[in-house]
Amino acid sequence: MIIRPHLHWFRMLLAWRGSVLPQLLPRLFLIFCISIVAVAAHDHLLPISLNLNTTAPFSLIGIALAVFLGFRNNASYDRWWEARKLWGQLLNESRSLTRQVLTLPVRPLPKEDVREFFTALGALPHALRHQLRKSDPREDLAARLPQALFERVMASRYKPATLMLYLGEWVQRHARAGAIDPMAVIAFDRNLNGISDVIGGCERIVSTPLPFAYSVMIHRTVYFFCASLPFGLVDSIGIFTPVFAVFVAYTFMAHEAIASQIEEPFGTDDNDLALHTMSMVIEDAMRDLLGEPALPLPSPEAEGYILN
Amino acid sequence: MIIRPHLHWFRMLLAWRGSVLPQLLPRLFLIFCISIVAVAAHDHLLPISLNLNTTAPFSLIGIALAVFLGFRNNASYDRWWEARKLWGQLLNESRSLTRQVLTLPVRPLPKEDVREFFTALGALPHALRHQLRKSDPREDLAARLPQALFERVMASRYKPATLMLYLGEWVQRHARAGAIDPMAVIAFDRNLNGISDVIGGCERIVSTPLPFAYSVMIHRTVYFFCASLPFGLVDSIGIFTPVFAVFVAYTFMAHEAIASQIEEPFGTDDNDLALHTMSMVIEDAMRDLLGEPALPLPSPEAEGYILN
Amino acid sequence: MIIRPHLHWFRMLLAWRGSVLPQLLPRLFLIFCISIVAVAAHDHLLPISLNLNTTAPFSLIGIALAVFLGFRNNASYDRWWEARKLWGQLLNESRSLTRQVLTLPVRPLPKEDVREFFTALGALPHALRHQLRKSDPREDLAARLPQALFERVMASRYKPATLMLYLGEWVQRHARAGAIDPMAVIAFDRNLNGISDVIGGCERIVSTPLPFAYSVMIHRTVYFFCASLPFGLVDSIGIFTPVFAVFVAYTFMAHEAIASQIEEPFGTDDNDLALHTMSMVIEDAMRDLLGEPALPLPSPEAEGYILN
Amino acid sequence: MIIRPHLHWFRMLLAWRGSVLPQLLPRLFLIFCISIVAVAAHDHLLPISLNLNTTAPFSLIGIALAVFLGFRNNASYDRWWEARKLWGQLLNESRSLTRQVLTLPVRPLPKEDVREFFTALGALPHALRHQLRKSDPREDLAARLPQALFERVMASRYKPATLMLYLGEWVQRHARAGAIDPMAVIAFDRNLNGISDVIGGCERIVSTPLPFAYSVMIHRTVYFFCASLPFGLVDSIGIFTPVFAVFVAYTFMAHEAIASQIEEPFGTDDNDLALHTMSMVIEDAMRDLLGEPALPLPSPEAEGYILN
Amino acid sequence: MIIRPHLHWFRMLLAWRGSVLPQLLPRLFLIFCISIVAVAAHDHLLPISLNLNTTAPFSLIGIALAVFLGFRNNASYDRWWEARKLWGQLLNESRSLTRQVLTLPVRPLPKEDVREFFTALGALPHALRHQLRKSDPREDLAARLPQALFERVMASRYKPATLMLYLGEWVQRHARAGAIDPMAVIAFDRNLNGISDVIGGCERIVSTPLPFAYSVMIHRTVYFFCASLPFGLVDSIGIFTPVFAVFVAYTFMAHEAIASQIEEPFGTDDNDLALHTMSMVIEDAMRDLLGEPALPLPSPEAEGYILN
Repeated sequence: MIIRPHLHWFRMLLAWRGSVLPQLLPRLFLIFCISIVAVAAHDHLLPISLNLNTTAPFSLIGIALAVFLGFRNNASYDRWWEARKLWGQLLNESRSLTRQVLTLPVRPLPKEDVREFFTALGALPHALRHQLRKSDPREDLAARLPQALFERVMASRYKPATLMLYLGEWVQRHARAGAIDPMAVIAFDRNLNGISDVIGGCERIVSTPLPFAYSVMIHRTVYFFCASLPFGLVDSIGIFTPVFAVFVAYTFMAHEAIASQIEEPFGTDDNDLALHTMSMVIEDAMRDLLGEPALPLPSPEAEGYILN
Repeated sequence: MIIRPHLHWFRMLLAWRGSVLPQLLPRLFLIFCISIVAVAAHDHLLPISLNLNTTAPFSLIGIALAVFLGFRNNASYDRWWEARKLWGQLLNESRSLTRQVLTLPVRPLPKEDVREFFTALGALPHALRHQLRKSDPREDLAARLPQALFERVMASRYKPATLMLYLGEWVQRHARAGAIDPMAVIAFDRNLNGISDVIGGCERIVSTPLPFAYSVMIHRTVYFFCASLPFGLVDSIGIFTPVFAVFVAYTFMAHEAIASQIEEPFGTDDNDLALHTMSMVIEDAMRDLLGEPALPLPSPEAEGYILN
Repeated sequence: MIIRPHLHWFRMLLAWRGSVLPQLLPRLFLIFCISIVAVAAHDHLLPISLNLNTTAPFSLIGIALAVFLGFRNNASYDRWWEARKLWGQLLNESRSLTRQVLTLPVRPLPKEDVREFFTALGALPHALRHQLRKSDPREDLAARLPQALFERVMASRYKPATLMLYLGEWVQRHARAGAIDPMAVIAFDRNLNGISDVIGGCERIVSTPLPFAYSVMIHRTVYFFCASLPFGLVDSIGIFTPVFAVFVAYTFMAHEAIASQIEEPFGTDDNDLALHTMSMVIEDAMRDLLGEPALPLPSPEAEGYILN
Repeated sequence: MIIRPHLHWFRMLLAWRGSVLPQLLPRLFLIFCISIVAVAAHDHLLPISLNLNTTAPFSLIGIALAVFLGFRNNASYDRWWEARKLWGQLLNESRSLTRQVLTLPVRPLPKEDVREFFTALGALPHALRHQLRKSDPREDLAARLPQALFERVMASRYKPATLMLYLGEWVQRHARAGAIDPMAVIAFDRNLNGISDVIGGCERIVSTPLPFAYSVMIHRTVYFFCASLPFGLVDSIGIFTPVFAVFVAYTFMAHEAIASQIEEPFGTDDNDLALHTMSMVIEDAMRDLLGEPALPLPSPEAEGYILN
Repeated sequence: MIIRPHLHWFRMLLAWRGSVLPQLLPRLFLIFCISIVAVAAHDHLLPISLNLNTTAPFSLIGIALAVFLGFRNNASYDRWWEARKLWGQLLNESRSLTRQVLTLPVRPLPKEDVREFFTALGALPHALRHQLRKSDPREDLAARLPQALFERVMASRYKPATLMLYLGEWVQRHARAGAIDPMAVIAFDRNLNGISDVIGGCERIVSTPLPFAYSVMIHRTVYFFCASLPFGLVDSIGIFTPVFAVFVAYTFMAHEAIASQIEEPFGTDDNDLALHTMSMVIEDAMRDLLGEPALPLPSPEAEGYILN
């Protein structure tokens, strides 16, 4: 995720990193070439005539397309923001569970027992991140979990859920030993359900993209529209056609490109969520409550995103 | 549900499977023929004149139609996504119940008792799927449930709800035997309520489509608009009329067709939810927590969808 | 509520029952007549000229109107769908309460006590339906409730709330007798709160329509627009004016008419909610859990709606 | 709040009370005069020419404005509907608390103790109404509360919250006396939290209007647009300019006016919420559960609104 | 946050403070100058011709842009309003916790113990405000917290969360001493979870702006559109071009500017949330329940905002 400091309105016009302009340049150049052809055909420089004489049908298509694209943006953005909310909830539940472990038991628990709990809780966001990005969790989990738990988690197919079960077993062990009373067990249970909801919610977003037919149809409409627009504009605006055709194409293609990036919020595109930083922040927030020293968060300069 | 890997922007223009283009081809061909007639009538090749001379009223209708279609898309997509969320919640509640059965009892329960619970819980998504698709659950339930429960469930009219009641009875039996304390009963009760909400929510979506009058009216407007558009375009763009008329018709008809597919998210259209895979995933996620071997999930190649 | 089986795209163009076309026919005929006048005035068949020469202002008004109408549709549909969700929640809470009565008591309750509870719970949706439709609940309640309760409910002003209180008293009676432990009382209490929320939510929708000024203003704009449109179209499309004017009028008036029907979702218009069937389904779902024989649901053919 | 019975489509065109037409008449007359000037300038009746020759820029501005106005309407309506939901929740929580007081104590409470609770609960909506409307609660509270409580409430700055605290103290008193068990205290606590949420939610809406810059900017755009529109229309539609200019101005100004009324839902404009009636209904619903006679609700004819 | 009393419709046209007009003036002057150039080029006063002859492409771009800008406004406003809701929830949870401390313990707690709790609870909104605005909390916290707690909080990285943990420890201390029973601990726990959700929610909004690519793209489109519009308008409206170009530019730029202000609701722009006043109000509301004298709230005249 690219986060830029608040820019002056003029400097923002020139922003390069984090905008989708770089990836669109070849396609915009294509539109530019088509515009040149349209101008040439109109000015009888080419032996054929492709004159449409009118922008009217483009107005109709363009505005309808804006409405449909608006719908798609909305749906994609909702997915992105819901994903962010789920990770935010993961932070909240982790903090609440931390508070519960520190304050709900009827007597202070031994230090090593407490550490066991936080070891598993701190590894959970990392396990979730690797599951969502289909990357290898081995290194991150090995660095955090004790050997036995590490092996159990690696053997399971849904690793974050297994860690969640382990947290429940930890509560059970202390409840049976009388250190946590039945009421407090219920309080833990509520937040463990919350963790369950976060895991399942992320899995839902990653496994169910927007209906494919939508994406295809809007994609086609955008590109057909942009490719034919120069022929509609050339009669009214002549040699300015390339400027406007490229500008309109930029607006529509960029919208479509951003929507398609944020539709899958757990990817590694520029505008996707900073899962790595967020996992570290969750771990760090938990350690802060425990009074442990800060974790080194990913350097914003090195990774291109800032998240505090 | 058709899920395609992330396609290159150019290959996406040519996507065939999963788009609604195949089903629309005959209707688009009809629009193409109407356009030929319009061109012929305009060029005095036909003895009658059907000249409208203007695209202005089509602009007005087309944009208004885009707004209304945008509303319908939105409502249909909300139904589809809510349905997906309900199935996601079913996964979450199943995981939470699994954790509760494994960790809340005051003493470890006998293995066969635990299996009883998971047998019923694992059959529930299948029973729900068959109810929503009005298909025959006999085979799937017989393969999973013990004989007595199978007969009881088959005799009931709302099968998933009966399974939910059975889970409650299981909790009650162990509570009366003292294996589950009253506080834990309440924790179970909360998640059983959640299952109740999922079942009822799915039934609501399946039994209450979008108001019929909306669908009819938008359908009519789309088709009347597309059929008359060629006569409005022909005066400005002449022989390009068939290209644009078919293109606009594709945009509007495809939107309407997709909205009408996803409006009923539990059907078996290309863009409907992959209920079968989701039922298997829920069962598999539960088995994973129990440490049992993985279920064979439906092969994506064979069924045309992927859901992880 | 009219629910039609999924229609072929062509048959849908001709649908009559359940569409708002029948009720709009006289008004559309009026627009047709105005169009004839506009054509006549334009062709110098009338001694006066009413020529506007342009569709431009109509484009502006029409599209702005589409945006406003889109807002109104959205708000009305949200009311309709929220109403449906509340009734869905009533089903969910009823099922959950059924499960609780059957499984939460510390010992099985006598059959007649259980029946008392379900008698009141089964009558609640009927009482709510009659309150929302301002119809006479006497017959439905008399057929379901024992005499004493019937009289108490009939004497109260908010009948479903009185039934909800009665359910609470039932729980209290068994709690004081030791059959329901304090924790279980809280579980009941949660779902009784849910019933309270459903009742209050329905009362809110029925007592607070969309701000009247909105409805009036959009109504006026739609009808003024439709009545003046022929004079704007006639110069560009001549004798096709009646066709297009009626078509546009149909689109806008139908939208307004549907929005105004579903805005009050508890009425008895074609597109309103099938409260009668839903009350029966809730009762039937409860009976199914109790193992009692099915209720005869209203016949779809006879009542024009299907709800499963 | 003006609520009109469902009107015939034709009578609705003529509705006067409750529409914003009366308040807009002077401004519409101003637009009418500007239109006359535009027509005169165009027909060379004035020595200056103000001819714009085109509606094109107005089309652009008008439709963009419709989109922005649509956004503002939406936001205002959401505030209005959320406010209504909060008052609905107040009714629900009051009913739930009533049920709890009547059924949760382990033994029936003395009548005067019960009355104490309902006295405070019944006064709460009135106290909230006066706080939201910044009116004097003295009379309404004096008529309902016992002297000591009245003085305590009048001395506090956030009166409804003080009443909420008093309800908590009442529960505490009976809990310490053993009449309410600890579990039931938690059930009360949940609904008291709900009351807290309602009070805070209403305070939020009343203290945080829509960002002022939005309102100003949309207001300016609407009025500039309406005032300059006649000069854009006059060339195309000549002497019909006054009719259309006033009609378009009505549509846009009315939208803005309604949005600005309902943005502050707790005011006393025609379309604001009927807080007075709602306070009485909440009190009446509570009394109904207690079996007390009905309160005289405000007469709809006298106050211009109906709310059942 | 600028809050103005309800203005007369005419005075609102002239509002200066709180509108974004002041900050836009230089840019609007630039558009004015471009318009002058466009008029001069069109009237052959300049040696070059920049004539576009048509507004058609601007209509297309402008309306599409309005749709996209509408989406951005919506998303920004949702962030702003969600932020406001979170602070509202903070007030609600604080009131609920206050009620719980005063009424849930099984016996009245010593005054100094109660004060300890409220000291920390009252400092929490201030700590949160400083974290969100990245300002120095030292002064505000030193004035409120006892020395030991102050040092602990200052040493932590997430100060509000540390205060939340402290509240949990306070509950634990009294629970272990027998003054708070296990059920009541759960009630406290629920509201402490709520505080956790508020803190995390605010951190989420502040750390995750709208995807940067959106902001850049819409910014560019708005400014390119406004800068080229004069050349499109000049042929139709001649010397009125500067008036309309500046007016349209104002509408679009102001929308973009407001959206970009409220997108970061915790800043100190004119339309951002009045965090300082809100912190004071939360503290004051808590003190009111405790019967303590009112805090001096920030003077509206001095700070430019009012929030009650």
